[in-house]
Amino acid sequence: MTTELEAMARALVLAATPGVPLGPNPRVGCVLLSPDGHVVGEGHHRGAGTAHAEVDALAAAGDAARGATAVVTLEPCDHTGRTGPCTQALLAAGVRRVVHALDDPTPLASGGVATLRAAGVEVEGGVLAPEARVVNRAWLHGLATGRPFVTWKLAASLDGRSAAADGTSRWISSRASRRDTHRRRAEADVMLVGTQTVLVDDPLLTVRDDADAALAHQPLRAVMGERDLPADRRVLVPVPGAPATVHLRTRDPRAALAELYDAGRRHVFLEGGPTLAAAFWRAGLVDEVVCYTAPVLLGAGAPAVADLGVGTMADAVRPEVLDVTVLPGLEGEGPDVRWTLAGVASPARGRAESRVSGGSR
Amino acid sequence: MTTELEAMARALVLAATPGVPLGPNPRVGCVLLSPDGHVVGEGHHRGAGTAHAEVDALAAAGDAARGATAVVTLEPCDHTGRTGPCTQALLAAGVRRVVHALDDPTPLASGGVATLRAAGVEVEGGVLAPEARVVNRAWLHGLATGRPFVTWKLAASLDGRSAAADGTSRWISSRASRRDTHRRRAEADVMLVGTQTVLVDDPLLTVRDDADAALAHQPLRAVMGERDLPADRRVLVPVPGAPATVHLRTRDPRAALAELYDAGRRHVFLEGGPTLAAAFWRAGLVDEVVCYTAPVLLGAGAPAVADLGVGTMADAVRPEVLDVTVLPGLEGEGPDVRWTLAGVASPARGRAESRVSGGSR
Ligand SMILES: NC(=O)c1ccc[n+]([C@@H]2O[C@H](COP(=O)([O-])OP(=O)(O)OC[C@H]3O[C@@H](n4cnc5c(N)ncnc54)[C@H](OP(=O)(O)O)[C@@H]3O)[C@@H](O)[C@H]2O)c1
Ligand SMILES: NC(=O)c1ccc[n+]([C@@H]2O[C@H](COP(=O)([O-])OP(=O)(O)OC[C@H]3O[C@@H](n4cnc5c(N)ncnc54)[C@H](OP(=O)(O)O)[C@@H]3O)[C@@H](O)[C@H]2O)c1
Repeated sequence: MTTELEAMARALVLAATPGVPLGPNPRVGCVLLSPDGHVVGEGHHRGAGTAHAEVDALAAAGDAARGATAVVTLEPCDHTGRTGPCTQALLAAGVRRVVHALDDPTPLASGGVATLRAAGVEVEGGVLAPEARVVNRAWLHGLATGRPFVTWKLAASLDGRSAAADGTSRWISSRASRRDTHRRRAEADVMLVGTQTVLVDDPLLTVRDDADAALAHQPLRAVMGERDLPADRRVLVPVPGAPATVHLRTRDPRAALAELYDAGRRHVFLEGGPTLAAAFWRAGLVDEVVCYTAPVLLGAGAPAVADLGVGTMADAVRPEVLDVTVLPGLEGEGPDVRWTLAGVASPARGRAESRVSGGSR
Repeated sequence: MTTELEAMARALVLAATPGVPLGPNPRVGCVLLSPDGHVVGEGHHRGAGTAHAEVDALAAAGDAARGATAVVTLEPCDHTGRTGPCTQALLAAGVRRVVHALDDPTPLASGGVATLRAAGVEVEGGVLAPEARVVNRAWLHGLATGRPFVTWKLAASLDGRSAAADGTSRWISSRASRRDTHRRRAEADVMLVGTQTVLVDDPLLTVRDDADAALAHQPLRAVMGERDLPADRRVLVPVPGAPATVHLRTRDPRAALAELYDAGRRHVFLEGGPTLAAAFWRAGLVDEVVCYTAPVLLGAGAPAVADLGVGTMADAVRPEVLDVTVLPGLEGEGPDVRWTLAGVASPARGRAESRVSGGSR
């Protein structure tokens, strides 16, 4: 016996399946409950041009969908895009009741509730809406601002350094932090670094899961800066499941984000280095900071954070702390602390649902 | 009805009363339990020349001590120092049973258990011994090493800075962290800073309680370095309850600690600056690190940690993490994270009880 609340929690997990959707579409999950509360189908959306979550779940349920309740993280769409309207699919399958989390904020796809109600389906909205907003914050942020959501990730020693005096930097943070970083990368659809990081560190920039296997769908790898990159850089080597690496030949963070947005990208995971991150910060374009602090002392070496334009203590950056988590240490490392902080641009968040510009599904 | 274990926990709280003893004596608490398990007396030791905890508790209990169990954090002493032997006081009062945490590691004062048993008193040792070791770690450390225990305290922004670009440094850490620092100062008997901190910051270096009142007994204020100090420095202004400030005119951490030890000091709270702290670290004379990390970004300004002699990541200092605590934030600051780390000199700890040199009570 599964309650509708439990089904919605499950639908949110499905919506947040790592690696999908990559692109401008929302994350949507759907669970179909029989009248006696059994799960008869589950589905989620995998990206532009693929089945919507409702249709995916209906396909899994087959005849068992008749009389069922559809628990879905977003109001079912009511328009014919690259796929047909979900409202019609739900009606055709004989679904009697729909429970959703978020109303669809796009003018094009909204109207689903009205259509369903007119056809005699019982509809209840707003269930676990705050949680659903978190899962889709990048998509909602894009609708509200017309640019991707930016997460600045950094890792530092207790004394704020990201490398030792001789430039070596592997590893400051613990394995647990690095695993966690991969999980966070998988939530984004772009990994962005500066040219200098590519020249010096030569990172691969792929996402691996907890079993160290590369994900089937990789976020876009992007390098920003005016200099040419040597062809032998690992970030330029094709990787299965990853789109071709993009070189953003600009120093203007706003222009870079516009280019990524126009390419359908909604969540940039900005991994440094400090110079590029500080440029985004000073431009007011960081929406969230994820900082791993490791119990390591270096006493010398490159600072993890570059000039943010702060001259005196009264102007110190004091971001809202959204979360502090101690990541257990393994085999002589850690425990590290993961800080999640609101970025300079964060007031734009939360306004998402009152805006209704753009966005396709 | 109080169990012996509960009474020992209470005796440890009494032993750790902030501000006493200041000096070379152990921290000792005592609770007297009547045969039916009621607390009939409590006491603790307040420092050289004052009553021992047992005698203090016996005085509080009066006749009610007859037949009682004495629960005491250290084996009762068996010698006549500035006060008489506690064993005789316990016997004279008619105590029937003694429960203690630590055996007395000093050759002079030990032997209490044998004396009590010979007189027909039931004795049980080792109750909450690990907790008692923590309360008396500075005293035990002194016995084991012949030098004071050193706690290096620092506060830093997430990016490892202790001041902004213009030198302003008030405040990086939250009120909760600063309160916590005062509690830690009160556990020590010396607060030590370098001459440069006195010249630049002009700290008062007093200990205030949670209600912001100065403690009746203050740790010794000590400044280390060869330069003269202007007479107007606040650290030189007499404070009620505080001994006259000491200027250690040396740059040799070992010599400075020897001078403090000879003056009866056992726990140095080393508050910086970074130059002095790094000198202690490199000399292998830091036993514990307490680091407050504040969710503040500065991007520029003085680093909180100076050169520790680490050149490459393989040599990074990775101290054992003894504790990580999130200190709740108040009114728009914090939450800060407090890290407690083992120092370079920490292997010397724990060996304390197997050593039996020096120490008076
Ligand atoms: N701790 C961490 O989490 C972490 C993460 C990544 C890297 N790192 C370390 O950081 C170091 C590299 O960082 P970095 O700060 O030197 O370089 P970076 O930020 O990776 O790259 C700086 C370059 O980005 C380009 N750029 C693009 N837009 C810019 C703008 N608005 N302002 C300034 N530059 C812009 C410029 O290159 P052009 O001249 O080509 O335009 C600039 O030289 C490496 O040593 C790496 O180990 C640490
Ligand atoms: N974040 C924090 O927790 C914290 C705490 C305290 C201070 N601070 C900041 O730290 C700054 C001052 O720190 P600092 O590092 O410049 O100075 P410092 O460590 O306070 O003092 C350095 C001085 O100590 C003396 N000294 C004694 N033994 C030494 C040795 N073995 N090696 C080197 N010097 C020795 C030397 O003075 P002589 O020339 O007189 O011998 C030296 O110039 C202030 O701006 C203050 O704001 C921060």
